[in-house]
Amino acid sequence: MDFQRLVLHRESCRAYDSARAVEDEKLRLVLEAARLAPSACNAQPYRFTVCRGELAKEVARATSGMGMNRFALDAPILLVISEDDYNKTAALGAKLKGNDYRSIDIGIAASHLTLAASDLGLSTCILGWFDDRRIRELCALSHPVRLVVTLGYAKEDKAPREKKRKEYSALIQEKK
Amino acid sequence: MDFQRLVLHRESCRAYDSARAVEDEKLRLVLEAARLAPSACNAQPYRFTVCRGELAKEVARATSGMGMNRFALDAPILLVISEDDYNKTAALGAKLKGNDYRSIDIGIAASHLTLAASDLGLSTCILGWFDDRRIRELCALSHPVRLVVTLGYAKEDKAPREKKRKEYSALIQEKK
Repeated sequence: MDFQRLVLHRESCRAYDSARAVEDEKLRLVLEAARLAPSACNAQPYRFTVCRGELAKEVARATSGMGMNRFALDAPILLVISEDDYNKTAALGAKLKGNDYRSIDIGIAASHLTLAASDLGLSTCILGWFDDRRIRELCALSHPVRLVVTLGYAKEDKAPREKKRKEYSALIQEKK
Repeated sequence: MDFQRLVLHRESCRAYDSARAVEDEKLRLVLEAARLAPSACNAQPYRFTVCRGELAKEVARATSGMGMNRFALDAPILLVISEDDYNKTAALGAKLKGNDYRSIDIGIAASHLTLAASDLGLSTCILGWFDDRRIRELCALSHPVRLVVTLGYAKEDKAPREKKRKEYSALIQEKK
């Protein structure tokens, strides 16, 4: 589908079909889209950890504090996005300019992941609420976890919800 | 084109056809894709400023310190992405979890912008090196500038360059 349709089609999914596995080839394509994402100074300062089976359940539990994200337990795959070392050029630029390029890069990579998944008929939800320490322990990560993405097939095949966003004029200004 | 092809096709462009304007309808579609981007707690904590003509040149000059980004002067449009206020839910989550969701959201929105542009035959480059103070002044912005995106038609219609990325095994680990 063209990109405009893909953007309208992609939405957060909070009800997964726990009995339906994600095909290996689709998972590979999703991860490849993330691998090819652009990043500041091509630093690629992130790492993706693919969690399945009992590990996925444990990671899902680590996103479920305060009644949040219970649906994550039904997703067959959880993708953990953690930081990785920064290269020198990017680290210097970030310092000189006081800009957090690493977080921006992680956003771009997450966008690639989730759009690629939608294009393949899969569903995702980007989770920012989780127990960092617990997930680092579960996945043997030496760097902070920044996002967890649930991946699987939606329980029901429904038309996309209408997106609620700020009005054009509140987000965009044209200057000449 | 499908998303896998779009990801391979989209690349940073550093040579623009300064004589070729961007069609209004294409610009609208690019901005609409950004407006529809997902964000933590749907906060949409960003603002897009469309700069053309003399303003675009001035903004381009503000990205050109230390010999960087001279090509930006040839892009017919510069899109300035600045922060906007955070909503209370997102701000509270970010504080409790020590995670910079706003920068991640800005990355996702920039990804939507640039992929939408490529899908329409336009070219972009995401710039993180700029004089924040000068651009805020030029665009009358009350919040920090986080990215500047050049937008236009490439000077030459070339096949995409091969992407240099870390190996799959350096970026992705599979756990069971």
